[in-house]
Amino acid sequence: MRAGFLTGGGEPLNEDKLLAEIGRILATGTSDVLVPRGDDAAVVAPADGPQVLTNDLLVEGVDFERRWMSPEDLGYRAIVVNVSDVAAMAGRPRYALVGLGLPPDVDPPWVIRLYAGIAEAAGEYGLTVVGGDLSRAGEVILAVTITGEAEGDRVVTRSGARPGDRIVVTGRLGGAAGGLALAMRDEVPAAPAWAQRLARALRRPTARVREGQVLAERGATAMIDVSDGLARDLGRLCRASAVGAEVRVDRIPVHADLFELAGVATIDPLELALGGGDDFELLATLPPDVVQHAMVALREDSGTELTEIGVIVEGDVLVALAPDGSRSPLPELGWDHFG
Amino acid sequence: MRAGFLTGGGEPLNEDKLLAEIGRILATGTSDVLVPRGDDAAVVAPADGPQVLTNDLLVEGVDFERRWMSPEDLGYRAIVVNVSDVAAMAGRPRYALVGLGLPPDVDPPWVIRLYAGIAEAAGEYGLTVVGGDLSRAGEVILAVTITGEAEGDRVVTRSGARPGDRIVVTGRLGGAAGGLALAMRDEVPAAPAWAQRLARALRRPTARVREGQVLAERGATAMIDVSDGLARDLGRLCRASAVGAEVRVDRIPVHADLFELAGVATIDPLELALGGGDDFELLATLPPDVVQHAMVALREDSGTELTEIGVIVEGDVLVALAPDGSRSPLPELGWDHFG
Repeated sequence: MRAGFLTGGGEPLNEDKLLAEIGRILATGTSDVLVPRGDDAAVVAPADGPQVLTNDLLVEGVDFERRWMSPEDLGYRAIVVNVSDVAAMAGRPRYALVGLGLPPDVDPPWVIRLYAGIAEAAGEYGLTVVGGDLSRAGEVILAVTITGEAEGDRVVTRSGARPGDRIVVTGRLGGAAGGLALAMRDEVPAAPAWAQRLARALRRPTARVREGQVLAERGATAMIDVSDGLARDLGRLCRASAVGAEVRVDRIPVHADLFELAGVATIDPLELALGGGDDFELLATLPPDVVQHAMVALREDSGTELTEIGVIVEGDVLVALAPDGSRSPLPELGWDHFG
Repeated sequence: MRAGFLTGGGEPLNEDKLLAEIGRILATGTSDVLVPRGDDAAVVAPADGPQVLTNDLLVEGVDFERRWMSPEDLGYRAIVVNVSDVAAMAGRPRYALVGLGLPPDVDPPWVIRLYAGIAEAAGEYGLTVVGGDLSRAGEVILAVTITGEAEGDRVVTRSGARPGDRIVVTGRLGGAAGGLALAMRDEVPAAPAWAQRLARALRRPTARVREGQVLAERGATAMIDVSDGLARDLGRLCRASAVGAEVRVDRIPVHADLFELAGVATIDPLELALGGGDDFELLATLPPDVVQHAMVALREDSGTELTEIGVIVEGDVLVALAPDGSRSPLPELGWDHFG
């Protein structure tokens, strides 16, 4: 535990005091928390099954800009990004640790609002925030770690896809990329319902926790979350499984509001659906005979749409199949956070 | 998992490729690692006892400067800082996750050297690095999370100190602060043995893992690691326990090489021992009747010196007792990482 002062907003604020204030925002947690935040380390009861561990770094200027993302949205997203990685293993999130780097122009109320977003997401996903560290930095940094548990000892990796497996994806793709395209426009746009939905896809994404568990129960052979674009993340799954894929591009579930966006901005809805990051939908492979069962189970359990978009094949190539039967390489452009 | 490119050092390097290179540096880990680095999340076998969770953010320009800390030392220290927090709970470290933010002027070989330091410390403390994330950033950011296990279900918090308990500290204090004072001098100093030892105290600190467990076995009522200075961290322990303390300042185990340093620089050895950060010694409280046993046990188990420096009292004041019996407030200056 390190210490110091935040001087933004006028009055210097002791880090210990700010941490105490943050502690009041965050839920106390369950009886499984044996030693809560505020000691050298937190202590929690042992997990029932295998533990799932993941971390992610969000950096201002790379992953977000403060001018187009509120602190509440940023805190919320930072949790979802990590919960989504737990979901992609078919796990259940339990605990979060948050490291926060703050530049001098950030004031304590901004930090409190950030933690309100973190607390909101933690509440929605049943997480307890057990650790925190604050430091001065040149830009806003959010370093989140989440630990979770495997449900019923079953986890799904990226590496189990076999030729003949069908490729499925939850929900609709490209919404967050559409929201980003809107956010980066300098003029303040009128906010019709479709634009509000795209903005929400970016600011309040959903991690598919239950969906991951249902897909695992139904026999998913491999799974990954779509954080860097369908094409790029499918490429990762295929490399990990040492297989190729054929994708029916006309079956990609494009976020419907992108067609509205295309009316006012020069975007290609299919390109955003294939290459846009941060949708946090799950991309999975299933044996052919369980696909229909999985679709029904997902709809009944969570009301979530599941779309079959292609098939796993031998080899190491990703092929885009057009409706006329023509074949072309599927470009793994993806969402480049360093671009 | 996010992706992108590191362009430092000339040739662009794909993040996936750099992560693969890093994977070769890091040990594969034990059979307890069910799904290693490289998937959406790592999966490890459930812990036997309660889990200890801690995280820490190291930021260039705040916690270190690249001109006076090699990447190997930085990686090594980033692990030790966190292991020390686990040690202060009397826990055993098991797994680490490393988030790394990199500015454009860092090249891949520097990153590889950083991970060599991480791997060295991980090996020394029996840790497996199971998670990693890379991002572009304005400065070097190291966000480390460590999970550990309580040994025999017993953890020691900051909050159990009672009036009459004796205050003890492991090892010697102020060495890292002395090393920092040397590192920040612009001239390249001659390197006598004492200067090398101080430099090492800063660059290759030791986390007192076994010592924490032995102190717990011997009945420690409260414990904290000295990361921000003895006075400041004793203040934290006392506030958490709702007690005060009387410290015999003549008994503080000052790092002997500070007296050599005082011959060539304007430093006060006692001030560095009281206020210098990053020594990572353990500060604990023990019932009076077990202090001698703990000293012997620690010497026999680890060869580590344990010094009694004061006593816990009623109230909320930290008092410095001089050898002549005079009393003055113990200033909680500490090591201010935001100063």
